Amino acid sequence: MQYIAPLAELIEHFRALPGIGNKTAVRLAYHVLDMDMEKARGLAGAIMRAKEKIGYCKVCFNLSDEDPCHICKSEARDHSVICVVEQPQDVAAMERMRDFKGVYHVLHGALSPLEGVGPENLKIKELLNRLHDDRVKEIIMATNPNVEGEATAMYIAKLLKPIGVKVTRIAHGLPVGGDLEYADEVTLSRAMENRIEL
Amino acid sequence: MQYIAPLAELIEHFRALPGIGNKTAVRLAYHVLDMDMEKARGLAGAIMRAKEKIGYCKVCFNLSDEDPCHICKSEARDHSVICVVEQPQDVAAMERMRDFKGVYHVLHGALSPLEGVGPENLKIKELLNRLHDDRVKEIIMATNPNVEGEATAMYIAKLLKPIGVKVTRIAHGLPVGGDLEYADEVTLSRAMENRIEL
Repeated sequence: MQYIAPLAELIEHFRALPGIGNKTAVRLAYHVLDMDMEKARGLAGAIMRAKEKIGYCKVCFNLSDEDPCHICKSEARDHSVICVVEQPQDVAAMERMRDFKGVYHVLHGALSPLEGVGPENLKIKELLNRLHDDRVKEIIMATNPNVEGEATAMYIAKLLKPIGVKVTRIAHGLPVGGDLEYADEVTLSRAMENRIEL
Repeated sequence: MQYIAPLAELIEHFRALPGIGNKTAVRLAYHVLDMDMEKARGLAGAIMRAKEKIGYCKVCFNLSDEDPCHICKSEARDHSVICVVEQPQDVAAMERMRDFKGVYHVLHGALSPLEGVGPENLKIKELLNRLHDDRVKEIIMATNPNVEGEATAMYIAKLLKPIGVKVTRIAHGLPVGGDLEYADEVTLSRAMENRIEL
């Protein structure tokens, strides 16, 4: 018995978190024991409050503590443009940009036959339902620039074509501040292909 | 407002933990939102249970859920040898070794005038009190092999000399599996100095 039971239990819970290895879990657990009772209560409370208060927006399926979420119900946003992303984290990334004034749709994953993720596991039907709203003019596919993300973008684009809505894909190319010398061939070839006139 | 309030609060609490940066805090928070309610309750509960059940052993000042701790009250341990360490984590490290059969004393720090840690901030008086027990034959100073740890070991050794108890210091030298080529000069010089006859 290396650690006393309540400590071992806490270490086990920390170790179950993503990116937390054995040593970090031990360090975090000892840190918790070292904390003021008030701060520990704050941490435990924040976990439970987040779980209890946050759910999914029934319109865009982003995480939200209200339904519909503050983006879906905002009249300041352009409801004719829907940006489709894989995860709630991606909405946060887009919002950091501060440029996009449309609304979102979170798929909660990408098509991946190897991992058994098919169209029925994603919020695709829910996206199609949103098109009954005549305001929708453009769907921007902002899934990740990898195999699964591309396949998902293609699949949804094909579904949407017959409906007659405009579907676009975010550009692939060299990251700003990146180094041409170290760019991989696929990115470089996409950057050449999608070059624009200055 | 980049994150909704309960999520921002949870991220803030994770970021306050040691070694958890901004990105990790965000990933952990999203992971918690993704967890089963049961698992989240388990994590929050483990934090509170650890805080509530674990205190200090009044004999050795190690973390414990009983008082005295299971080491101090074990008759299988050799109560004539006390190993003095800086932190409860150090006791766990010593116990992993499985070689040491004596008992411990946790100082909860090391002397550090720069950080305002003096003898009165450490459990030194409590260590001296334990020597009233005539069983104690040897004190092993296992503070860290750095400036603060050495100073602490020297300070306590000086205090204990007049009492007539044997005080020893764990050996400094090359770590097993280490590489002589990459050893620092001080370690190498200590390893030469403390060489033993084969």
